Amino acid sequence: MAFTWDVRIRFVDTDASGRIHYTAMFRYFEAAEFEFLRSLGTNYTSFPDHGFPRVHVECDYKASTQCDDLLSIGVEIQQMGNSSLTYGFRASSPEGVLIAQGKITVVCLAKATGKPVAIPDAMRKALL
Amino acid sequence: MAFTWDVRIRFVDTDASGRIHYTAMFRYFEAAEFEFLRSLGTNYTSFPDHGFPRVHVECDYKASTQCDDLLSIGVEIQQMGNSSLTYGFRASSPEGVLIAQGKITVVCLAKATGKPVAIPDAMRKALL
Amino acid sequence: MAFTWDVRIRFVDTDASGRIHYTAMFRYFEAAEFEFLRSLGTNYTSFPDHGFPRVHVECDYKASTQCDDLLSIGVEIQQMGNSSLTYGFRASSPEGVLIAQGKITVVCLAKATGKPVAIPDAMRKALL
Amino acid sequence: MAFTWDVRIRFVDTDASGRIHYTAMFRYFEAAEFEFLRSLGTNYTSFPDHGFPRVHVECDYKASTQCDDLLSIGVEIQQMGNSSLTYGFRASSPEGVLIAQGKITVVCLAKATGKPVAIPDAMRKALL
Repeated sequence: MAFTWDVRIRFVDTDASGRIHYTAMFRYFEAAEFEFLRSLGTNYTSFPDHGFPRVHVECDYKASTQCDDLLSIGVEIQQMGNSSLTYGFRASSPEGVLIAQGKITVVCLAKATGKPVAIPDAMRKALL
Repeated sequence: MAFTWDVRIRFVDTDASGRIHYTAMFRYFEAAEFEFLRSLGTNYTSFPDHGFPRVHVECDYKASTQCDDLLSIGVEIQQMGNSSLTYGFRASSPEGVLIAQGKITVVCLAKATGKPVAIPDAMRKALL
Repeated sequence: MAFTWDVRIRFVDTDASGRIHYTAMFRYFEAAEFEFLRSLGTNYTSFPDHGFPRVHVECDYKASTQCDDLLSIGVEIQQMGNSSLTYGFRASSPEGVLIAQGKITVVCLAKATGKPVAIPDAMRKALL
Repeated sequence: MAFTWDVRIRFVDTDASGRIHYTAMFRYFEAAEFEFLRSLGTNYTSFPDHGFPRVHVECDYKASTQCDDLLSIGVEIQQMGNSSLTYGFRASSPEGVLIAQGKITVVCLAKATGKPVAIPDAMRKALL
């Protein structure tokens, strides 16, 4: 993937199994997504009249990781429709071992109505 | 679904959109899953030689919710293999509106080897 | 304490030490605080022009707990000033063993200015 | 403070007030603490026979922050006893505005007995 963001697994993100809690991977995906948008010169907060809730998320966990392990999170746009946007994510170890692979679909809403609307042009241009 | 567990959305589980953060739904699914197992007379911690990591999770978000809203989380077993177990989840409002729908697959591992092994008989019997 | 709220420690709230992560205690305190206000017929969300940020929090941890343990969280108002409110919290095991003890001070702000203002009368009356 | 670690406030760490949830500050303090130890050539996980639970935490919140704000977290050792260790933390904006200030006391335990024991020599030497 063209964009990657590195993160270290934090103690608070582990659980009593001794490894990362699976929900923490979504936390890391989210941070990588925001950094990916920033790298393209855009972000959600520039569009105060729009909301971007998640409508579908999924993740496959391929290998375990624990506190202090480094992860490299790759992000890409897999699909962009009129109002929806699907990101793909890959978390890998520094040695390139695939740890987790996910997909998240966001829908662009008008905050005033709560209804889906077209992704703002300024964001669409940045993402293309 | 035969088993349901009720929860109230907590402030810490909201985000700056004013609604629940999508990862919090997995937190509620996990609590419901543990209560479901308890209702069947079993649980993960009774099997200290086994681990039960998640290998696949997914969720579709159908409607938004906010702080203090009540959710009813339904849980069921959708599939049980030799070493894997897939749960289905449905989060509904008190009025029966579907809020989110998810699926989580767990694999039973031997802690000593990290390899998949058969779900312990005592757990399998409780789940059938 | 006059008001108590019961909670079960969730797996996501544990860490690799095998016990509850210390920040999860604040999560449980927060839920108990909201339920305490509800029991008195008030809550923060009824006052959309006011914010109630935390300005001081502290906690002493007296004994360890782990996944599936039950906690009873006691809440009381320790002090109420013109614009500030200090809650006391005690987390105990079902056998009455003290697990943690904390204190949280909230300040009432006008959202429009971000400045401290008097706690709304309707809330003050409910809390007295 | 001699050691600082920079972090960006993440969306998942905000709440419906539009700002950071106060518990997220402890998450950032914890990450800064681990990086501080790493910078001194030590860490908790090198001592598998010891646990280092928190026995006291506190934080004062001085100014609000929101998603995507940068924070610089300063860490120092305020006190080191035979078995206990108190860290001080300061979170500042890039412009040097104090955002939050906290203190966390850790006790070194023998995992076998759960009793306080002397901080291991190798850790003590690294911290002095």
